[in-house]
Amino acid sequence: MGDDEAGRAAEALIPQFQLERLLTQDQAGRRIVLLGSIDSKPAILLAERAAFASDDDHLSTFAASLEHIKNLGANDIYSWFLASSGVSNGASAAQQPPDLKLNLIYPCTEKHVKKYTTQRVRMVTETAETFAKHVRPYMQRNREEGRLNWVFNIIEGRTEQEDVMYREHGEEGFLVLPDLNWDRKTLTSLHLLALVERRDLWSLRDLTRNHIIWLKHMRQKLLDAATKLYPSIEWDELKLYLHYQPTYYHMHIHIVHAMLEAGTTQSVGKAFSLENIISQLEGMPEGKGMADVSLTYFLGEQNELWTNIFLPLKEGQGPSQA
Amino acid sequence: MGDDEAGRAAEALIPQFQLERLLTQDQAGRRIVLLGSIDSKPAILLAERAAFASDDDHLSTFAASLEHIKNLGANDIYSWFLASSGVSNGASAAQQPPDLKLNLIYPCTEKHVKKYTTQRVRMVTETAETFAKHVRPYMQRNREEGRLNWVFNIIEGRTEQEDVMYREHGEEGFLVLPDLNWDRKTLTSLHLLALVERRDLWSLRDLTRNHIIWLKHMRQKLLDAATKLYPSIEWDELKLYLHYQPTYYHMHIHIVHAMLEAGTTQSVGKAFSLENIISQLEGMPEGKGMADVSLTYFLGEQNELWTNIFLPLKEGQGPSQA
Repeated sequence: MGDDEAGRAAEALIPQFQLERLLTQDQAGRRIVLLGSIDSKPAILLAERAAFASDDDHLSTFAASLEHIKNLGANDIYSWFLASSGVSNGASAAQQPPDLKLNLIYPCTEKHVKKYTTQRVRMVTETAETFAKHVRPYMQRNREEGRLNWVFNIIEGRTEQEDVMYREHGEEGFLVLPDLNWDRKTLTSLHLLALVERRDLWSLRDLTRNHIIWLKHMRQKLLDAATKLYPSIEWDELKLYLHYQPTYYHMHIHIVHAMLEAGTTQSVGKAFSLENIISQLEGMPEGKGMADVSLTYFLGEQNELWTNIFLPLKEGQGPSQA
Repeated sequence: MGDDEAGRAAEALIPQFQLERLLTQDQAGRRIVLLGSIDSKPAILLAERAAFASDDDHLSTFAASLEHIKNLGANDIYSWFLASSGVSNGASAAQQPPDLKLNLIYPCTEKHVKKYTTQRVRMVTETAETFAKHVRPYMQRNREEGRLNWVFNIIEGRTEQEDVMYREHGEEGFLVLPDLNWDRKTLTSLHLLALVERRDLWSLRDLTRNHIIWLKHMRQKLLDAATKLYPSIEWDELKLYLHYQPTYYHMHIHIVHAMLEAGTTQSVGKAFSLENIISQLEGMPEGKGMADVSLTYFLGEQNELWTNIFLPLKEGQGPSQA
């Protein structure tokens, strides 16, 4: 049997596949693994959405080749759609759901272009000295500019109260919100944020050996809160971590389901496990804390920490104050 | 203008989109962001492959609805294909590339079914005591079973030499291999593995303060090797990490491009940054090391460490020796 013939024989098997059940759906739903049979023998069929071809020929005809474009909504210059790739005339195609999601920003600005242009990413090592001399002052300026008002408004009960899912007051006080990226229903992709009530902790850099007991209590309280909110989740199915650098300088802890597919939010060089921070503090001598160690993490080149601190340091100049 | 009318107006914009250039392709190539214009005004069009519908109606007709199935290769019971979803008769559809990748395992076994059935994931905290009493003996049994022979074969130059991209001998000796998941050409998704030549380090648990200098030298050598192999990459575009638990108990370090999309391999609770391990060791008193701290990480429920050690511990029984 020639290769072509073997290939055709293999191709002929696929349409004969009889579904028994779905084994797995992952990669943000873009891969399915089906268990079934062909000719009464068991078979597994994996199907995944392919990458887009990125050559200009295909990209330039891409928009015009779309079919069944259906608008789902619009807000100002933003609108979103479902669509199907290619031209589908057949009856069975009509039964298959749209395979593309579209977003249109029209008209767009330079800011949109910058936002969607791939940023180069750099690894930086922030020593204790760089933190004290440059990064902590940056955090302070950032806080003084009023960028935390939205956090304080939530903590003080003035805004977004409908999103607060859980709240405790006091020195070990905190409140729990859904992360913006969570659909608020799929439990295996649960993503919550816990904002602590105390305001003296700007980031994990402020944690010292003196906070070990407080951190352990917080951990227990966060696991209790999340499993109370979602009783079908067990406490050891929850992953807790902090970002460094965080997006805002008021201490907050991410709570995610351990099955949530790992993306940038959970990535090494960005996410620091709460338990491993506790463990790192426990391994330190008395009087020490996270402000005394080097931390290595990544930054986009458009991040102010890169442009104003780490790039000048790399180039042998003093960081700017901007 | 009614909502339907506004929707139709929005839908009519899409086919008018004139491509200027591709801004970004991410999410494993499954999202593209195109810059262009509509009616001479700038526009951004984002297109992403949708998740598969997972209801039985669609899944049961899925295989039969595929078109243009093209076999790419086969090996024993495994074969792989490209295909298009839906029925495409039109001329422009023929110009669009296949939007699906398929894998068929036929006939498959119970082992395949188990492999592709979603595993529940658990977070565990491995204390210094649990490590010494249970996990280290597990590692030792694992090493004694000869599971490292393939590593020693590579280190001693007996097998897979065609894959060795870089090698240095001595106490700071190591060799560099491409990770199996890397396509060996896309630089922004570079993923290399460095196997150290010395055999006394089974995992990051064996690292102590005495290894700090060695680790710093290794870090520098790995960055040098990778940037020598790929001169267009700068050293601060490389991320270095170790897994805990690793797949095999001979110390190896992952080297990835900082732009590589973060997945499970880089996830908190699995990936430990090399620099942050060094930093953690530096923060410890003399004589201490990674064997003295608690480590929190995740395990699939089918992992032997879960079934034989952590599940029995959770249930208050002693771990089994199996």
